[in-house]
Amino acid sequence: MTTISLDELNTVDAAGFAAALGDIYEHAPWVAQAVCGKRPFTTLAALHEAMAGAVHGAPADRRLDLIKAHPDLAGKAARVGQLTASSRAEQASAGLDRLSEGEFAQFHRLNDSYRRKFAMPFIVCVRRHGKDSILRQFERRLQNDPDAETKTALAEIVRIGALRLDQRVEAADHLEVHGRLSTHVLDTHGGRPAEGVAVELFELSAAGERALIARAVTNRDGRTDAPLIDGRPLPIARYELRFHVADYFAARGAPQADPPFLDVVPVAFTVAEPEGHYHVPLLVSPWSYTTYRGS
Amino acid sequence: MTTISLDELNTVDAAGFAAALGDIYEHAPWVAQAVCGKRPFTTLAALHEAMAGAVHGAPADRRLDLIKAHPDLAGKAARVGQLTASSRAEQASAGLDRLSEGEFAQFHRLNDSYRRKFAMPFIVCVRRHGKDSILRQFERRLQNDPDAETKTALAEIVRIGALRLDQRVEAADHLEVHGRLSTHVLDTHGGRPAEGVAVELFELSAAGERALIARAVTNRDGRTDAPLIDGRPLPIARYELRFHVADYFAARGAPQADPPFLDVVPVAFTVAEPEGHYHVPLLVSPWSYTTYRGS
Amino acid sequence: MTTISLDELNTVDAAGFAAALGDIYEHAPWVAQAVCGKRPFTTLAALHEAMAGAVHGAPADRRLDLIKAHPDLAGKAARVGQLTASSRAEQASAGLDRLSEGEFAQFHRLNDSYRRKFAMPFIVCVRRHGKDSILRQFERRLQNDPDAETKTALAEIVRIGALRLDQRVEAADHLEVHGRLSTHVLDTHGGRPAEGVAVELFELSAAGERALIARAVTNRDGRTDAPLIDGRPLPIARYELRFHVADYFAARGAPQADPPFLDVVPVAFTVAEPEGHYHVPLLVSPWSYTTYRGS
Amino acid sequence: MTTISLDELNTVDAAGFAAALGDIYEHAPWVAQAVCGKRPFTTLAALHEAMAGAVHGAPADRRLDLIKAHPDLAGKAARVGQLTASSRAEQASAGLDRLSEGEFAQFHRLNDSYRRKFAMPFIVCVRRHGKDSILRQFERRLQNDPDAETKTALAEIVRIGALRLDQRVEAADHLEVHGRLSTHVLDTHGGRPAEGVAVELFELSAAGERALIARAVTNRDGRTDAPLIDGRPLPIARYELRFHVADYFAARGAPQADPPFLDVVPVAFTVAEPEGHYHVPLLVSPWSYTTYRGS
Repeated sequence: MTTISLDELNTVDAAGFAAALGDIYEHAPWVAQAVCGKRPFTTLAALHEAMAGAVHGAPADRRLDLIKAHPDLAGKAARVGQLTASSRAEQASAGLDRLSEGEFAQFHRLNDSYRRKFAMPFIVCVRRHGKDSILRQFERRLQNDPDAETKTALAEIVRIGALRLDQRVEAADHLEVHGRLSTHVLDTHGGRPAEGVAVELFELSAAGERALIARAVTNRDGRTDAPLIDGRPLPIARYELRFHVADYFAARGAPQADPPFLDVVPVAFTVAEPEGHYHVPLLVSPWSYTTYRGS
Repeated sequence: MTTISLDELNTVDAAGFAAALGDIYEHAPWVAQAVCGKRPFTTLAALHEAMAGAVHGAPADRRLDLIKAHPDLAGKAARVGQLTASSRAEQASAGLDRLSEGEFAQFHRLNDSYRRKFAMPFIVCVRRHGKDSILRQFERRLQNDPDAETKTALAEIVRIGALRLDQRVEAADHLEVHGRLSTHVLDTHGGRPAEGVAVELFELSAAGERALIARAVTNRDGRTDAPLIDGRPLPIARYELRFHVADYFAARGAPQADPPFLDVVPVAFTVAEPEGHYHVPLLVSPWSYTTYRGS
Repeated sequence: MTTISLDELNTVDAAGFAAALGDIYEHAPWVAQAVCGKRPFTTLAALHEAMAGAVHGAPADRRLDLIKAHPDLAGKAARVGQLTASSRAEQASAGLDRLSEGEFAQFHRLNDSYRRKFAMPFIVCVRRHGKDSILRQFERRLQNDPDAETKTALAEIVRIGALRLDQRVEAADHLEVHGRLSTHVLDTHGGRPAEGVAVELFELSAAGERALIARAVTNRDGRTDAPLIDGRPLPIARYELRFHVADYFAARGAPQADPPFLDVVPVAFTVAEPEGHYHVPLLVSPWSYTTYRGS
Repeated sequence: MTTISLDELNTVDAAGFAAALGDIYEHAPWVAQAVCGKRPFTTLAALHEAMAGAVHGAPADRRLDLIKAHPDLAGKAARVGQLTASSRAEQASAGLDRLSEGEFAQFHRLNDSYRRKFAMPFIVCVRRHGKDSILRQFERRLQNDPDAETKTALAEIVRIGALRLDQRVEAADHLEVHGRLSTHVLDTHGGRPAEGVAVELFELSAAGERALIARAVTNRDGRTDAPLIDGRPLPIARYELRFHVADYFAARGAPQADPPFLDVVPVAFTVAEPEGHYHVPLLVSPWSYTTYRGS
């Protein structure tokens, strides 16, 4: 993906500006055009606010056109390859490009119900959700009245725009669109950070699927060298951390049962704030452990 | 299964005694006959000690015959229904009656290797093991020298005898052949025992199978009305307790994230002492928990 | 103190009944006399309910006389030895018999303020309170209006009566007037109950005094052979448990820093329910511990 | 205290160099003079190594003179004000300037025993010890043989020199002579860092004294803005952290007992590594807490 600096955006001519940001809002180059004259933007946040303001300030029918220009989630356009590049990548991030027939049918039914009720496509910022969460959103928002739902759709469009903008533009500041998931293992048997513990992170689905998201080994400080998830929203979903503690204690020579009482410790938790910082540590001896949402 | 009281065993005639206990040792009614004259036995433990003594005190060839009278684990005799009732129930307890073709072939190979090396069947007290543990025993004991292995086989036969005897005879005392697995949920958010938490216990296999062993709901004291396993050995195996804490906290009106950070809390642990007492409690708030091997 | 059985109370003549229970309510033998004709009482609870009912059902002036028959707390009657035996023992239980001059003056001031506002003595069931808690009660109840305060005083008198009755009468049931404080030490380094840990219980005062209440050593199950407090109300007060864990781990040969990171672990907590069961365990390794209000 | 930069030390003339570092080793300007010709030093560590090398490489009698030039701890020289400025500040840091008569007598006895056995003053880097630890060192080192003790005394002199050098010279690097003590409060009731918890740190003595070392309030991240101890060695001593959790939970509106079960939570621990990083967090709800040596 090509990126552009905020400086260059501030100095390029209007055509260049439109070309660089024309697809931030789906099939709506008018959003970029509307803010071109407000340059220079001193921060990325200011640019984003301006574009969001252009959306919210547009006439009602133009806002409705913007909504309607979005593709169905896991819809026919996706099946036959007619999505914009951004939409395709976004839908793939939540696994919507590899649904089972049953799931595809479920999305089809929900899309239909939604279009029948609201006469527009269901829009959600999919990078902020796992598949189960998207389905829950679908079910919940079908209960909304049309006004509330139109507001919700526009809010989601602005979230999508913010994520695309943050990816596209290099600037000194970042939009607050990213979350972080980290861990930390403390050896309460030896009284020190646990170095060398293998850790895996899985995203779980209600249907029992397990997708490996990250794999790491703790360093001298008991942490992983990089966060397990960083630089993107944390999809609202259920996760499982798996800590290989029996191997760790065996390597340290700590006495354990045979076979060890604790082997791979699973810690299952659910992310509810995609832009949050989730720190999920483990304080562990061969016979006990504590975990919590830390900071 | 018919049971008999220790009192009755002490007063019945020799034929009755032999009939009642003739199958405690597999195809070896001579063990019961050998102790008949030592009656009365004041405790079940004394009766067991006497029978075990008869086994250990028998001539070497008789002990070898006793070993050889045992069927292969998951062997052909099992497949064609030629096991004694006791053996059949015991092998079924570890799931040996429902192996996949691959597992059956693995047992077949191990049985062959074992017979080639030791010229006798592999004997293990299967009620004390899950399937994975039996395979580990097989691999380990194949490394033994013949003398050590003969001793191990006899020790296992005596364990089998103890379990059968404890099931067969009603007495004031019990043989120490049973373990116990219990749990306890403490609500550290509300500062009280957690009442009404659904708990499930699964036995896990290395191949990923999950067998539901017990299901319970915690009572006013945060405990289950009965231990999750009691009155039998705890098979050496990996287990998972699953605590439904989000439902519990929702029912108490405790504030949680949406969706809740903790939903079903899995606690995986391994039993190494079949006759041990494993107490595995959970101290839990909507954001943290602690678990440990307690007492 | 002489006790009497419920059976005997049910069969003794009226004079004997009055003699046995005449001092359950302070200077008010009429309470016992009022229930004598309602015998037999099948439970101690029924007897207590009857006596409490006699108090609450008495004419207003009689109830007021009952209140006024009580001595001041830490008052002049106490100083010159004019208390009933029960009152003397009760006041001593909260340390009111050994106040400093400053504390005596503080009680004197509060008694005066109270009498000025309510024209009666301040009555509280002192066995349920530490000294600081009595002072807090004093301050709070001085804010009451006279009606509410009269009700509170009678409720306290009934509590005093229940405690005296439970001490005096032997019956199959007990009144729910006792609390319990227990502990339990779990060694998370070794994965077993911690046997041989010296434990002390202190009652703390706001002024910094520390009174040793109990001292025990944990047994094989990690518990103390008897609860640290039992068979009496737990005074509302601040307490400190002190667990000598460095000595314990040294005796087990567990590696520790020199000097050990944890030596004597203090756990400070406050009792708010005198009739509650407080279980305050410690899960401890040489480097970490967890404590909580358990059950 | 005047400081000087490493750059300036590298360029100043020999007299200036000697003047700046002449008192790093007690009454031993020859140490600085010995390394003056080895300039330039690219790091502070290199300068320290050179000076330590000069000490260890000096003739035996010169090393002994260096040892003997040190004053007694809490000795007569201290009483009559004849210490160097450095020695006076160091002895004060461990409270040796405000001993009771009994403690003074104890030091006097130990100094005497030590001089009788080793014919030199007892030297220890007092900034690394609390008063109790100095006495323990005294007792232990009296058991040494003279050779081992001479080595120990020189090692302590080099530690003193390193600390003085690190204070005196500004450089890009620091000598590893400092420890750090920090804390962190996590609210497991609310699932967030505990902001606004008052925390106090006391140093405890075996005789029951409590010296307030630091006082802080946790910030939005549940940490204190600065470590509780930083930029100096952590004296080997027993400490108590006191966390005011009832006030915190009351301010958050979390339900608590009346009075609260937990009020001020004391966490007592002992520092054994003066140059270590001690992180002692608290995970706390109104009913439970966990603490540990973290990182």
